[in-house]
Amino acid sequence: MTKLTIVKIGGNIIENEKDLRQFLIDFSAIEGEKILVHGGGKSATAFANRLGLKPKLIDGRRITDKPNLDIAIMTYAGLLNKNIVAGLQKNNCNAIGLTGADANTIESEKRPVKTIDYGFVGDVKKVNSNNIKALILAGFTPVFCALTHNTKGQLLNTNADTVASEIAIAMSTDFEVELMYCFELQGVLTDINNLDSVITTLSASTYADFVEQGVISAGMLPKLENCFNALYKGVSAIQIGNSNMITTADTLCTKIKL
Amino acid sequence: MTKLTIVKIGGNIIENEKDLRQFLIDFSAIEGEKILVHGGGKSATAFANRLGLKPKLIDGRRITDKPNLDIAIMTYAGLLNKNIVAGLQKNNCNAIGLTGADANTIESEKRPVKTIDYGFVGDVKKVNSNNIKALILAGFTPVFCALTHNTKGQLLNTNADTVASEIAIAMSTDFEVELMYCFELQGVLTDINNLDSVITTLSASTYADFVEQGVISAGMLPKLENCFNALYKGVSAIQIGNSNMITTADTLCTKIKL
Repeated sequence: MTKLTIVKIGGNIIENEKDLRQFLIDFSAIEGEKILVHGGGKSATAFANRLGLKPKLIDGRRITDKPNLDIAIMTYAGLLNKNIVAGLQKNNCNAIGLTGADANTIESEKRPVKTIDYGFVGDVKKVNSNNIKALILAGFTPVFCALTHNTKGQLLNTNADTVASEIAIAMSTDFEVELMYCFELQGVLTDINNLDSVITTLSASTYADFVEQGVISAGMLPKLENCFNALYKGVSAIQIGNSNMITTADTLCTKIKL
Repeated sequence: MTKLTIVKIGGNIIENEKDLRQFLIDFSAIEGEKILVHGGGKSATAFANRLGLKPKLIDGRRITDKPNLDIAIMTYAGLLNKNIVAGLQKNNCNAIGLTGADANTIESEKRPVKTIDYGFVGDVKKVNSNNIKALILAGFTPVFCALTHNTKGQLLNTNADTVASEIAIAMSTDFEVELMYCFELQGVLTDINNLDSVITTLSASTYADFVEQGVISAGMLPKLENCFNALYKGVSAIQIGNSNMITTADTLCTKIKL
């Protein structure tokens, strides 16, 4: 099967103009088929502040009400996505920017209300991998922001890590998928106060041990759950680390395996 | 040759939620291949006002400085384009939203400074019709907002009428292109105070006469120049009128011919 590299980037790269510029050069240099998924970082919050909108929190969880959804659409699908696409084009990467509504790539449904109504937040229901594949076969590099749609005309805010892993799972039917989560650290740490304590290989069993021992920080758990879920469902390889790993194979990072 | 219908809509439809909803139903019902091009209406201006940004004018001409470009990207490529795409998906039209940077569809260059520096405004240099064709052949309906790129990483603001006519011209190599400009009137009027004075057929020679007689209002001239230019360069048919013409063939409108 043809190899497909899926890279997810977040705020630490997006919010730093110089880092983003270098990343776009590096990403463009990846050989073969590739997909980029980007988060929104703090840009939506910063923008909401400029408009005098207060972030809406219930029990410490962020709620996406209509004004905040509009801001997410403007910043994620507008300013961030289009500047990333233009930057990739500069580097001869024929990027095409997408939300899940575009080409009906990612269908979601509004998160059901249990104790909290998260507002316009969507849980992924279906990735239409054939449509993404058609774009790749036509010679384009999809660049996804973290917005999906319910197929009834409503855009929904969706976690970018989840978007990346759901795309990776769906594409693994037709491609040998390698998923790379770039973040500010060199990998998953055993000691959050020691940046050198990178776990270089994390298997399902060592992961279970680490969780039991409370070694892995709570913030990493949803990301890692996403990773193992993706591996169980057909993704070939997953790495977590800083963006140097996308260009240099021997970069220190966390390789996740079943 | 396969028929391709290109429809351009502006503020009068975009800014009215009910009209837009009906338009998206009608557009989705167009048989065969199609492309939508939308302007930004007053949404960018309204949004700039909310942010306390003053529109920058020199000699009465609007200048796109960096803050205003960012707003154009957020509203045109973000809020407007993505809600239109989601609305079309609701109507089973497999839309894909694009700026000229996406899939490198429309290359432009910053308008040269003669007496006025218009800022981040781009004049279309090249439409890569093969990339648009690839999207259509893959089963997608392109939805363009009026932003282009200079291939060096810079997005540029471009007139939506021009975007529509340049796409129409480029696509006419491979398709029989019909271009429809939707606006608030039923067509080009001979008397701006009489809405019934619609010119039903406008040929190049009658146009020249009307211009000489000062019958056609100054505001319509650039739009009509665009139309004749497109017809000279291979577009098969052009109509100007209100959006009813896209569904009902005998709707009163102005048909423009060479």
